[in-house]
Amino acid sequence: MNTLDRTTKDWQAADAAHFLHPFTDHQALSAKGSRIITRGEGVWLWDSEGQKIFDAMSGLWCVNVGYGRQELIDAATQQLQTLPFYNAFFQTATTPSIALAEKLAQLSPPQFQHVFFSGSGSEGNDTIVRLVRRYWDLQGHPGRHTIISRINAYHGSTMAGASLGGMVDMHAQGGLPIPGIVHIEQPYFAQHAQPGESHDEFGRRAASWLEYKILEVGPDKVAAFIGEPVQGAGGVIIPPDTYWPEIQRICDQYGILLVSDEVICGFGRTGHMFGCERFGVRPDLITFAKGVSSGYIPLGGVLVGDRVARVLIEQGGEFNHGYTYSGHPVACAVALANLGVIEREGLVQRVHDDTGPYLAQQFAALQGHPLVGEAETCGLMGAIRLVRRQATADAPAEPFASSLSVGMVCRGHCFNNGLIMRAVGDRMIIAPPLILTRELIDEMMARIRRCLELTWVDVQQRGWV
Amino acid sequence: MNTLDRTTKDWQAADAAHFLHPFTDHQALSAKGSRIITRGEGVWLWDSEGQKIFDAMSGLWCVNVGYGRQELIDAATQQLQTLPFYNAFFQTATTPSIALAEKLAQLSPPQFQHVFFSGSGSEGNDTIVRLVRRYWDLQGHPGRHTIISRINAYHGSTMAGASLGGMVDMHAQGGLPIPGIVHIEQPYFAQHAQPGESHDEFGRRAASWLEYKILEVGPDKVAAFIGEPVQGAGGVIIPPDTYWPEIQRICDQYGILLVSDEVICGFGRTGHMFGCERFGVRPDLITFAKGVSSGYIPLGGVLVGDRVARVLIEQGGEFNHGYTYSGHPVACAVALANLGVIEREGLVQRVHDDTGPYLAQQFAALQGHPLVGEAETCGLMGAIRLVRRQATADAPAEPFASSLSVGMVCRGHCFNNGLIMRAVGDRMIIAPPLILTRELIDEMMARIRRCLELTWVDVQQRGWV
Repeated sequence: MNTLDRTTKDWQAADAAHFLHPFTDHQALSAKGSRIITRGEGVWLWDSEGQKIFDAMSGLWCVNVGYGRQELIDAATQQLQTLPFYNAFFQTATTPSIALAEKLAQLSPPQFQHVFFSGSGSEGNDTIVRLVRRYWDLQGHPGRHTIISRINAYHGSTMAGASLGGMVDMHAQGGLPIPGIVHIEQPYFAQHAQPGESHDEFGRRAASWLEYKILEVGPDKVAAFIGEPVQGAGGVIIPPDTYWPEIQRICDQYGILLVSDEVICGFGRTGHMFGCERFGVRPDLITFAKGVSSGYIPLGGVLVGDRVARVLIEQGGEFNHGYTYSGHPVACAVALANLGVIEREGLVQRVHDDTGPYLAQQFAALQGHPLVGEAETCGLMGAIRLVRRQATADAPAEPFASSLSVGMVCRGHCFNNGLIMRAVGDRMIIAPPLILTRELIDEMMARIRRCLELTWVDVQQRGWV
Repeated sequence: MNTLDRTTKDWQAADAAHFLHPFTDHQALSAKGSRIITRGEGVWLWDSEGQKIFDAMSGLWCVNVGYGRQELIDAATQQLQTLPFYNAFFQTATTPSIALAEKLAQLSPPQFQHVFFSGSGSEGNDTIVRLVRRYWDLQGHPGRHTIISRINAYHGSTMAGASLGGMVDMHAQGGLPIPGIVHIEQPYFAQHAQPGESHDEFGRRAASWLEYKILEVGPDKVAAFIGEPVQGAGGVIIPPDTYWPEIQRICDQYGILLVSDEVICGFGRTGHMFGCERFGVRPDLITFAKGVSSGYIPLGGVLVGDRVARVLIEQGGEFNHGYTYSGHPVACAVALANLGVIEREGLVQRVHDDTGPYLAQQFAALQGHPLVGEAETCGLMGAIRLVRRQATADAPAEPFASSLSVGMVCRGHCFNNGLIMRAVGDRMIIAPPLILTRELIDEMMARIRRCLELTWVDVQQRGWV
């Protein structure tokens, strides 16, 4: 059968028969049928029924430069013609992998001069575990083995990545977490702030949980702390500005490595090239993926800061780790083209100076809506917390019962009204392409407001408010 | 600086300054300088000094259809233009991911109807761990948690992948293996056969080690056995024909899942579409990567057999696992084009009927060379064991001391004489593109013989023989 002739129903049947989707209840999806995405251009997607959709999630925090960028397509085609693959084992390299490593060293904070490539953020974070333990072994401290992470963090889906992550549902399947990884609570104001506590006070207190955990584990047993500058998949949890500097201070005090997972925050998302720069942190290691290639070709890796690189290189001998696709020439060529677009079009600066603040204004204006608890942004990522009743002077906002899955109700309206927002519990989140203009933000906001309105009517009819 | 104008020395300097290669001693490599691969066509590579190189390793077991294939390049370009990325989370799919899942179900043994995609073999094997444990949890046997693998196996480089693998050097760094993974000895005749034992006898005995291990761990605690049909990175260890059927019998007897890691053996390498078919095994799960896309774009995954798929789908609810790039549309489009080439050109049949047997003849003819202990092939993969003295009627072959690294000496001669063979200890291994003709095999064999000759002269001059 010619696949071009297929109807949506045909595609859905083949999908149900053969394709096990990530993070999916296959039986439920098969009964309903997948939406088939067929085309992308700029911030827009089209499905197999011809619906035009505003993709406010950039594919999945990926297409920072939008869909259909000719520079990236040309880079891929040219590299495929010249050399579609060669490995970087056995004392060889390809020119795109070298050039990209050099470019990343130039774009990243000054302590980063070395890059270890992987094929994804999962593989990057998995590499982090081996890297930090290897560092402490070489330093003569093999007991420094434990990595501290946070509940509701997302660090990928390999066994080690999912263990670093703090997703309860993931830990419930497959015997996770692996040993030597422990978690502290996240800096989520709506969940953990005490009555009357300011954001700044809360940020410092949330950071202090790291110190308590270090003392509990034993300072001579802790290898590293890992965190996303803004927790993405956890629901765009934006920490108070006091949080990260205090985390830095604690890591410095105890000499433990600081790892910034920039798979989502990297490459302009926060209005800085890296999220750690937004929050004034100096990490020893950075995980990257997604935005580095705008997702056109899978690519990830770890920026290795001088503190770790020096030990690894000078004392390490062979580091017995790596992937077939570490430094894949096509992926690296596309990433170079992608970073070229980001630089030439000044996308990071644009988010910082113009579109980020403009989006923040628009989100602030949602605050009056009866469903909206908070609406917050950081650069071009944002979250709206849906609440049953808004906060008053005397009482905090009242959440919906989590069993109602109000986020999924809202996502349903988005789905049917040409908007992709993601639901994480009661948080509706966005991370649109960085090419957004004010006009496109207006267009996106109109759709967001419409979907909030439809959700509001819906929850009233359901008797939930 | 325009990267196109760079000299080899410039590239090497940038490489040394920024690019941490996989499985590499960075300091040693920096002192020496990487070889820069710049172009590929068919079975040939060129480096930045203009040397033309016969790639007898297919990039790294990847480019089954060779370099520079226009069908794959066109498929990538077209998909990049149409839709460079969209995820398969949140009830959506793209057409290439569905079409590839369908195609894989068609090409694989009949028990396979479902595909779970990843970005690499490492991520695929990592998925295996979560999948088999999830299966037993759903079956009401959460105690069936342990996976049995083999020493010298290679199953990727994530924490779980490297733990499944049996590489001593990898386990020595980063706190591996993770719990719940144990290893038996490999079916390597030259290492483990007893005096007078036939290959068939040895194969059955080597398989019996699985049964001993099951009984040691406790049959109600074992989840699965995983193995490469032919251990690839371990040195192309080809098991006797009696081995796998006995492994199958033991798995069946104890009801444990059988996993075939086909990252290297899949897609024609052994003269069958999958290596398990070569050895008459019916696995429950298959890991794939590399050859599925000929490495042009990173892609991997797991074929999920009906036994596991039924439980997962009917009783599982949401499987909380997956990767951003699970079902990447460009990777899947390229894989479809790649499988199209393999089918249209009858490459699997050609390896089975013609080039595989011809290569076997050529390797058999190496047997007289004073350095050659054994020279074995399986389809288009092969290994030559370098020995200090050949076997006699009374004594087995005498190996070189492993401290001499005789393989590296031979690899050096290959390196300087336009041939890529890989050295694994004292085994020189090949896995050339499946597009090889008899003429190209003759060309490759001439280079192999020349490099063996140079190595022979070299080891004589060094006084090693």
